Amino acid sequence: MDTITLTNPIDMHIHLRQDSLLQAVLPYSASCFSAVLAMPNLNPPLLNTQSVLAYKEKIMMECDFEKAYNIILPHINNQNPQANLLNIQQHFVPIMSLYVHDNLTLAEIQKAKTSGIKILKLYPKGATTNAENGMSEVLTPNFLTLLEEAQRLGMILSIHGESNGFSMDREREFLFIFEELAKSFPTLKIIIEHLSDRHSIEMVHKYPNLFGTITLHHLLLTLDDVIGGKLNPFMFCKPVVKTPKDREAILEVALSGDSKFSFGSDSAPHTIEAKMNGAAGIFNAPILLQALCSLFDKHKKIENLQDFVSCNALQIYDISLPFVKHVILQKKPFVFGRQISTQVGDIEVFMGNEILDYCIADIRTEVA
Amino acid sequence: MDTITLTNPIDMHIHLRQDSLLQAVLPYSASCFSAVLAMPNLNPPLLNTQSVLAYKEKIMMECDFEKAYNIILPHINNQNPQANLLNIQQHFVPIMSLYVHDNLTLAEIQKAKTSGIKILKLYPKGATTNAENGMSEVLTPNFLTLLEEAQRLGMILSIHGESNGFSMDREREFLFIFEELAKSFPTLKIIIEHLSDRHSIEMVHKYPNLFGTITLHHLLLTLDDVIGGKLNPFMFCKPVVKTPKDREAILEVALSGDSKFSFGSDSAPHTIEAKMNGAAGIFNAPILLQALCSLFDKHKKIENLQDFVSCNALQIYDISLPFVKHVILQKKPFVFGRQISTQVGDIEVFMGNEILDYCIADIRTEVA
Repeated sequence: MDTITLTNPIDMHIHLRQDSLLQAVLPYSASCFSAVLAMPNLNPPLLNTQSVLAYKEKIMMECDFEKAYNIILPHINNQNPQANLLNIQQHFVPIMSLYVHDNLTLAEIQKAKTSGIKILKLYPKGATTNAENGMSEVLTPNFLTLLEEAQRLGMILSIHGESNGFSMDREREFLFIFEELAKSFPTLKIIIEHLSDRHSIEMVHKYPNLFGTITLHHLLLTLDDVIGGKLNPFMFCKPVVKTPKDREAILEVALSGDSKFSFGSDSAPHTIEAKMNGAAGIFNAPILLQALCSLFDKHKKIENLQDFVSCNALQIYDISLPFVKHVILQKKPFVFGRQISTQVGDIEVFMGNEILDYCIADIRTEVA
Repeated sequence: MDTITLTNPIDMHIHLRQDSLLQAVLPYSASCFSAVLAMPNLNPPLLNTQSVLAYKEKIMMECDFEKAYNIILPHINNQNPQANLLNIQQHFVPIMSLYVHDNLTLAEIQKAKTSGIKILKLYPKGATTNAENGMSEVLTPNFLTLLEEAQRLGMILSIHGESNGFSMDREREFLFIFEELAKSFPTLKIIIEHLSDRHSIEMVHKYPNLFGTITLHHLLLTLDDVIGGKLNPFMFCKPVVKTPKDREAILEVALSGDSKFSFGSDSAPHTIEAKMNGAAGIFNAPILLQALCSLFDKHKKIENLQDFVSCNALQIYDISLPFVKHVILQKKPFVFGRQISTQVGDIEVFMGNEILDYCIADIRTEVA
């Protein structure tokens, strides 16, 4: 049997949403990933430590693992999965992030760090879903003072880096800010989130304290998948998928297992109605590991997937987990939508109707 | 009263569709334009002279001018419009075009010309709506033989020029075919339709027998209007609107009244349902002259609009009309959708909710 075991898969960028949406999407991540970085752009956004901690509690309360595994059970290819499920305990860590905004204070940053929140997430104002409270300007004296402290505290700055220019140039136009920050705060780790432009890769390589996260869809799609034939709202996300050259460069760096890049799905569930109304975001949580295995295997780089989907993140973000989760994938055609539907609730699943080369065969956990 | 009179406005690229859609959209063009070039990409496409002539007859049968003027009456700003309507006779000429396909024969081209059809419309296979029967390859010996004859007969070749490459590069990648054809057939007039890429302007200027048509929306929009904020299917068309640089270049050449470029709206009605399913095309027929006046006036180039919207086409396509239609526009805020709805039937009108600076004040016709 042709299998691959991924140990402690980590998703360093995910939108888990709230309430019924949280309930619907969490099982897919909680079952197959050991840790996820939960984005703070809720409505309202998580502007202080208190709201981040309250959100973390909600996520943990929704972590009903029996339910989670029952939901993903139809997608597990194993004749006797119950036997494995018995071994599964609460093995899922949501890593939290604080939404950076114009009124953020030094005291709030210190409080966050003390409370175990070490990731600051910066959105430029209006750049994406619920980014209305984002920063209108990044390089302000006040914010630079905060970053000085964040650096001292060993925090990490994750940035949705887009200018307000022409959509295809936005990420590239924002790079000078990354450069400025990387030079000004040489021991602050700074992440270029959901990298979509090949120029960002060069920038990450230029500074030791710059890193990147990469989504599945930026490895697979170009703008042609959105506008090349009929308009396809389900391939629409921010930053928008770009040119074939960009995709090739991002794919190459991910396949290489380059230690400066970790996997972050940017799984962003929106109802079909919201998608038809133009919302940006791709919901890919249910098929991530299957699709990543298929992709890396197709390119004969499966040996680098463990780095891309786990080890790099553990190192960059200095994550330690008190357990080990093994996800065993088997080379066998898998179509998510074939079991029940290509939807999870009112949300269309990315690649939900496509044949993937790998399916999940088992999930096993043990104490670290 | 601040008015401008446009004489014999001509729309050198329009989709009039069939049946109920034809009935719904024709009044807007028939009332305000003296002539239009009707596109042959119907379903099924107009692959021979007979079907083109049958389509022309259908259009003429639908030209109920009383109905047409009654439909546009609410959009005319005139206290006593009836007085003018009495003067209006049948003053509308649909210019027809033959769909170029792989099985087109020399005899069919000759027959078309004899029947008064002098425009050949070429679509690359699959480039846009109903282009499945388009040419899989352009520069074939067989087609070049046909073009030799078309040149001899004084016909005109209109091309939807897009490669099957990356969407933002498709028009530029097709230009070498225009160059090849322009050189091979120096007295054949060749039109780059609905120009969307600034490189096409250079190409038109390079060869005396190359010309271009320009839409309203390519003068106004960039890709950002489709994907820059929320996804907006109503701004989606083929060729897709491109970069700010492209728009600026196209706008500049249109505003200059450059004699090698004529107006062609590419008004392409699709039901809202079809648009939500990703159909490419913008329906702008009801607001064309109002929006063009507003745009040219805003840029202080209103004196060149007559050339752009009429004289250039008369000369390039060698059109003579047995009547003169004057459309009098008045500088007064106009919102199409304010009267009844932003829709015509099930079709959303481009800019239907926007305030335009000009409205139509009167339409008068006389014998040439």
